Amino acid sequence: MNSLAYSAAEIAAIYRVIAERRDMRHFISGDLPEEQLARLLTAAHHAPSVGLMQPWRFIRVTDPHLRVQIHDLVDKERHLTAQALGEREAEFLQLKVEGVMECAELLVASLCANREQYIFGRRTLPEMDLASLSCAIQNLWLAARAEGLGMGWVSLFDPQALAELLHMPPGAKPVAILCLGPVAEFYQEPMLISANWARARPLHELVQENQWRFPDSDASTRET
Amino acid sequence: MNSLAYSAAEIAAIYRVIAERRDMRHFISGDLPEEQLARLLTAAHHAPSVGLMQPWRFIRVTDPHLRVQIHDLVDKERHLTAQALGEREAEFLQLKVEGVMECAELLVASLCANREQYIFGRRTLPEMDLASLSCAIQNLWLAARAEGLGMGWVSLFDPQALAELLHMPPGAKPVAILCLGPVAEFYQEPMLISANWARARPLHELVQENQWRFPDSDASTRET
Repeated sequence: MNSLAYSAAEIAAIYRVIAERRDMRHFISGDLPEEQLARLLTAAHHAPSVGLMQPWRFIRVTDPHLRVQIHDLVDKERHLTAQALGEREAEFLQLKVEGVMECAELLVASLCANREQYIFGRRTLPEMDLASLSCAIQNLWLAARAEGLGMGWVSLFDPQALAELLHMPPGAKPVAILCLGPVAEFYQEPMLISANWARARPLHELVQENQWRFPDSDASTRET
Repeated sequence: MNSLAYSAAEIAAIYRVIAERRDMRHFISGDLPEEQLARLLTAAHHAPSVGLMQPWRFIRVTDPHLRVQIHDLVDKERHLTAQALGEREAEFLQLKVEGVMECAELLVASLCANREQYIFGRRTLPEMDLASLSCAIQNLWLAARAEGLGMGWVSLFDPQALAELLHMPPGAKPVAILCLGPVAEFYQEPMLISANWARARPLHELVQENQWRFPDSDASTRET
């Protein structure tokens, strides 16, 4: 144990939340105090970002009519996805994939506009902006779990349609609809495992040394 | 406080690590026990992933010659980035942007091949695979910080060249060179702030309600 390490109890708490975070789609009623939402967003804002660009923009949806419109977008994409899945269409439609209408707080996380001016760490990998935003969302997710709140990241939507709905300028891009709020309980394991949609692979299959020797058919959990 | 919330001490530990995680480029000598590295990778492996695709693949670099080759790739891109930055070229070259040769452990994080078979949550947003991998890296980062280890995410490289160096198949894509290991201390604030490269924006400028009203010139920290 080195001198910069946290206490054993702190370390245990951090590993606990990493293991117990779940992508939630089932919510119960209840509100978040404003200061709690602010804490969670502050956790997101502590994320690393490439060249310190802080590309994340959050839109809090408080207008009930807008929430319905967002739900409609998600449901439309849910059916298009089902069709695209072919033989698993009916099985997919049985899954609960979002809690947009039930969650206490609905947030849209978006990449900012004018990102092309940021070159540091992005000349060859411009998608590092999304990587940064994703780290921010993971922070939010972990903080929410610790506070006993569930969160789900919904990516079933047409980003252009959602951008128009929120009056985003060209260049900005929504990448997450975040459903956040009280839940009755957290899933014991990822819901897609319980629902027999997919199986998780063990870590050792995903780590190698010095060169790529993963199997040619590198499917974790074939969907089709 | 709801009944699913962690204890106040646990919550504090989780917010602490979120706030104190840093993107490190300065490392000191020392090794990681194998079981510690396994714990950190397990934390990464607990990340959420779109449709449970678990797109992350980690390659641990233990061959010293390969480490030098990776450093050469990074240094080449460092100079190309400097040129692309124009008037900030000299300033950029003064920054320490990576610790590839000094860190105890070097990992390459990559997206797996054959990702097109995963449609759930990716029909309109295929880049959700990178989002999932980024959440895994953030988990690793937080666990490492708690254990007193520094980590840096280097994205200064040509992904095609790195893919070839590691014998990756078509479709796989490296997105992070992760420098991990003991550090003398953690930066008090992000190094790019201390070095006057960029300024951070306050959270309130990045959150709005119901529609996009961020300024047209939406630059956090203009590089140029």
